[in-house]
Formats: sequence, structure tokens, C-alpha cells
Amino acid sequence: MNNDTFLKACRREKTDFTPVWLMRQAGRYMKEYMEIRSKHSFLEMCKNPEIAAEITLQPVNKLGVDAAILFADILLPLDGMGIDFEFAKNEGPVIHTPVRTRKDIDKVRFTPAEVATPYVMEAIKIVKKELNGRVPLIGFSGAPFTLASYIIEAGGSKNYVHAKTLMYEDPEGWHILMNKISDTVISYLNAQIKAGAQAVQLFDSWVGCMCPKDYEEYVLPHSKKVIDNIDKSVPLIHFAFNASTLLPQVVRAGGDVIGLDWKIDLGEAWKTIGYDKAVQGNIDPVILHGPIPVIRKRVKEILDSAGGRPGHIFNLGHGILPTTPVEHAKALVDAVHEYSRR
Amino acid sequence: MNNDTFLKACRREKTDFTPVWLMRQAGRYMKEYMEIRSKHSFLEMCKNPEIAAEITLQPVNKLGVDAAILFADILLPLDGMGIDFEFAKNEGPVIHTPVRTRKDIDKVRFTPAEVATPYVMEAIKIVKKELNGRVPLIGFSGAPFTLASYIIEAGGSKNYVHAKTLMYEDPEGWHILMNKISDTVISYLNAQIKAGAQAVQLFDSWVGCMCPKDYEEYVLPHSKKVIDNIDKSVPLIHFAFNASTLLPQVVRAGGDVIGLDWKIDLGEAWKTIGYDKAVQGNIDPVILHGPIPVIRKRVKEILDSAGGRPGHIFNLGHGILPTTPVEHAKALVDAVHEYSRR
Repeated sequence: MNNDTFLKACRREKTDFTPVWLMRQAGRYMKEYMEIRSKHSFLEMCKNPEIAAEITLQPVNKLGVDAAILFADILLPLDGMGIDFEFAKNEGPVIHTPVRTRKDIDKVRFTPAEVATPYVMEAIKIVKKELNGRVPLIGFSGAPFTLASYIIEAGGSKNYVHAKTLMYEDPEGWHILMNKISDTVISYLNAQIKAGAQAVQLFDSWVGCMCPKDYEEYVLPHSKKVIDNIDKSVPLIHFAFNASTLLPQVVRAGGDVIGLDWKIDLGEAWKTIGYDKAVQGNIDPVILHGPIPVIRKRVKEILDSAGGRPGHIFNLGHGILPTTPVEHAKALVDAVHEYSRR
Repeated sequence: MNNDTFLKACRREKTDFTPVWLMRQAGRYMKEYMEIRSKHSFLEMCKNPEIAAEITLQPVNKLGVDAAILFADILLPLDGMGIDFEFAKNEGPVIHTPVRTRKDIDKVRFTPAEVATPYVMEAIKIVKKELNGRVPLIGFSGAPFTLASYIIEAGGSKNYVHAKTLMYEDPEGWHILMNKISDTVISYLNAQIKAGAQAVQLFDSWVGCMCPKDYEEYVLPHSKKVIDNIDKSVPLIHFAFNASTLLPQVVRAGGDVIGLDWKIDLGEAWKTIGYDKAVQGNIDPVILHGPIPVIRKRVKEILDSAGGRPGHIFNLGHGILPTTPVEHAKALVDAVHEYSRR
């Protein structure tokens, strides 16, 4: 491995500089991506290993980030549960037959990830070969709550009324569903590791809608089960978006690295999390729309907040936005490297 | 005043029971409201004092809450700034000429609230007469950041790219705009108090998108200016939604009562806030879709978390949802009264 800074930071080992990558770094803000996107649907791109591999490599070449993350979608494990979904134009994911009753829950299947989503494992193998040790490759999946909320709500949601109502009205049914999802996520992430992923991230993108007691009761056992059952030979990043008030619970669910959004001071959060974990984050993605000197100032503030402690991976606090100027993303990466070089 | 429990709790005085009201308690979940709504547009209802007064009283009669809150919209102060808005069907507020440049900012006017929004003051006077001292009446306004984000983004927003970009690119322009908005909010809330509002709430509904440093620099001085300039003869409730990681900053901006959403344990939050402030909250509005025993259990947990300390006003952690069964809202109010009776 030419640049193993990211993996060292995951293990809280000393590094020459703070590693950085950007959530959704392979995406719509990049013209190279949009060129491919103009010829294929989003799911076609995810399911074609050559295309997914090519897109995965684009930001590594262009931005100089310290890790690649597989181009994929957090919903791909749904393929292993027999749940169809598509990306409707400008509407995000749509699930045509939402899971809301015991009968629906009973129908949710388990298929091993190598069988259900072979294209993901194939893409990982291609990327690994092309990276040829330049930087490590991160695999990922949606976390059980986030996947459950999508399949219950039939897509994105504002208030998660259907998901929460299922919890409150039929807690046993909820737990059965979450167990099924968890088994799929375990299979999916372990297959990615077997195919060559050198770290994995669990994205709990929507869990920030939960109160601490509900997280504890309805989410934590399942996220913990997933994390406990992932191959321990690679680090796991646990990122619960918009959930910094749930940090103690998220930490109890597990993860070697805890992802942070921008709504909390990184140094304060790390104190809460405990220094036996690494942290990842946490600049507001919108700041990349501001002038470069403002971006650089904020980068420095976050590095200062981390205090040079080993175990900080710089990242955005959420996915990069399609409207981001690519040269500003590059300026962010450069500023992290420049300011953190020891 | 027959029932001054709410006002006593705002002042952290001992009460016989914990007072409760529900954000958006005058709203779409109630058939009495929908009957009026079927004949008028939302803004017509806000701007007709007799109708606004009638709607304000509906939940007081139906639910037995301990305070009335004026039926109005957080955006009404825009009328004093010369900014037109409307409520598009299923789309929420739409501002046709967003404020994004210095030229736009220069055009933002100040008109005293009695002149710009006389209908609000008129509605307050009618409600006060009809309440005849049964329960206190709360007035309210959107907070400066929330109003700014609406008028810059041209309506609701997911990522607040325009608002934040203005901050980063032209901080001086941002502060000029926020000062103008703040002057309008001060005039608007003081006029409500003069007309008879016995408490006021500042709703910072969208400020949860900010990182602590940006809140400190771009929001706090303006929220503080508003709060410092509101008539001190009535209590002020400061509610920053989805912003519990910003609590220390929100508290520094001010308020006699700090509103809490459901994403934080109320007892923990109160410790952070300090016991020299009252707190309001904080049950998840979605729980009202669950069975009544589940609602009652959560009510008890929140009351236990408050620990019987004087200065807790029970409320939802955000506005009541249109899909809420009205009998569940009533069950919540009853449970608060029953469990907290000392």
C-alpha cells in the first residue's frame, strides 16, 4: 500500500498528515461522472462493475483523497431481500411495495450477498486491481434503521410516521424486520470485505429522527448486531447522520471510527465518544460553495479542534452536494494535507 | 386568570401540575379546523382576525391545554419587510422574489408591526376577550435565521445553500439583512405583547442546519438582539428546532424558557441549559400515532426526566402532525395532567 494513512488513522496510529476523503466523492459535482451519467441510469451505473469501478476511481485521480469509496448506493442490499426499488427522476428512491404489515415482513427474504449483489463484489475486485495499492478502498451499506425506514415509508420521508407507528404498534414485528435487514447487511458487508474492501462504513442516514429512548430500544440492538458480526480484520466506520445527541448510544452500538456531521464541535464530540475510538468528519458540505479562504479557515479550525490526536479522518459532515465546484473540493483536500502535515 | 399554571412554570414557580400545550395545536388534525380551512386559503385564515381567533380557541376547548397560541404563521412578519409570499398547494411557503444580493437586501423595508400586520394584533384582542382569563395567550414569530433562510432560499430548503453562501461570500450583507429582519421581529413581538399576548415564542425552525461556529457568528448576535429588545414583562420561549447540539449557544442568545425537540433527554438537556431557565418539551410528535398506552408511558418518562423541578412546560418536540388522531392528542394532555398532579 503506497498510502495507508487512512487505515492507520482508523487504528489511531500516528500518521504524517491527517487523511481525508469525501462522502459521495464519486458523484454529480464532477463532469467526468456526469458524462457517464448522461448515458446510463443511476442503477445501471451501480450494477455495471466496470462503470462503478471507473466512477470510484475518478475522485482518487482528481482530488488526491486518501481513500477510495466504492460507487454504489446505500439501498443495494435491498436486492438481497427481494424488495424492488428504483430511482425516480428528481425524487430519489421509490419502493413500490412498502413493507408495513406482518404479512409484508414475512415476505422479506434473505439471499447471500454474493448471490444477490454479485456486481458489487465484482466492482470491488476491479477497483482493487486498478488502484494497485495507491489508496485503500472503503465498502459500505445503509444501516438497518435507514434501510427499514426506506422500505416502510416507500422512499424518503419527512416524519417517518409509518416506520415509527410500526415500532409503537407492533414492536415484535419491527424487531423481526430489523433482524432480517441486519442479516442481509452483515452478509453484504462481509462479502465486500472478502472481495477486497479494506474498511467499511455503515451509513445510518435517517436515524437522527429518533429520540434517545427509541434509538436504544428499536435501533441499537440491531446496529450492534451488525457491527459485532462484521469481519474484524478491517476497520468499521459508524456514521449516524444528524444524530449527535445520540452519540453515547451510537458509540455503544459500536464501530472503530465514529462519523460526525457538522452540527457538533469535533473536539467536544470526541471527548463524549472516548479517545479509544477514531473519529471522522466534520465540515459542513455547504461551505464548499463559499470562497476558498473561508474553506481553508474552517479546515484549520476543525484540525485544531482534533488537536493533532492520532485517529482523525477528515471528511465532510454529509455527502458532497452536486452544486459543489470541483476546485473547491480539491482546495479542501489540499488544505487538510497542508495544515496537518507534521 | 383562572389557570395561570403555564405562566407560573415559565417563571419557574411551583405549580399544582405540569402545564401542557402543543405546538401547532390549532391545526389540520382537527375537523373543526378543516371545516374552516375548506372555505378559506391558509393566508386568508391568518389575516382574518375573527377566523384566526376562532381557530386559536378550538384546541383550548377541545383538548384542555393550559395555554392558547395565536393561530398565525411564522412568516407573517415578512409583510412588514415588503416581501410577498404565498402558500402554494402542498408546497409550503413560496417567495417569488428571493433576497440574495446587496441590491435585494437594500430593498428590504421596515414597517412597524401595527401598520404592517394589524390583523395579528386584532386577532389577539378578540382571543383575549373570548378567553376571558381561562388560560394565557402565547404570541410568536419566526426567528431571524429562519425568516432569512425562507427569504433567501425562496421557500423551504434542504441544504440552505443560498443562505449559507451569502454568509460566506458577503458576511457584511448577511448581517445587514439579519439586522433588518431582527428589527421587524422586535416590532412584531412587542406589538403582540402590547395587544395582549402574555408570553411569546421565537421559533428558530431551520437553524439546526448550522454548525456551532456559524451559529455563533451569523445567528447568535441577532437572536440575542431580538430577545434583549422584547418587553420583559412577559416570558419569552426560545425554540431552536433540531439544534440540541447548539444548546449552549442558544441559551446564550437568551430566553426565559428553552424549547427542546425530542432528540435529547429532557433532564440531560436541562442540566446543560442550567436550572435558571425553564424548559419546554419534548415528546416526539409522531408518538401520537401510536397506541395510547405507549403515549402515556413516554409522557411519564419525560415527566420523570424533568424530576418534578419547577419550570417544566410539557409540549411536543415539534408541531403536531395533520395525521394525528385528535383523541390521542387529548390523551397526551390528560396523561400530563394526571401523572404530574402533585
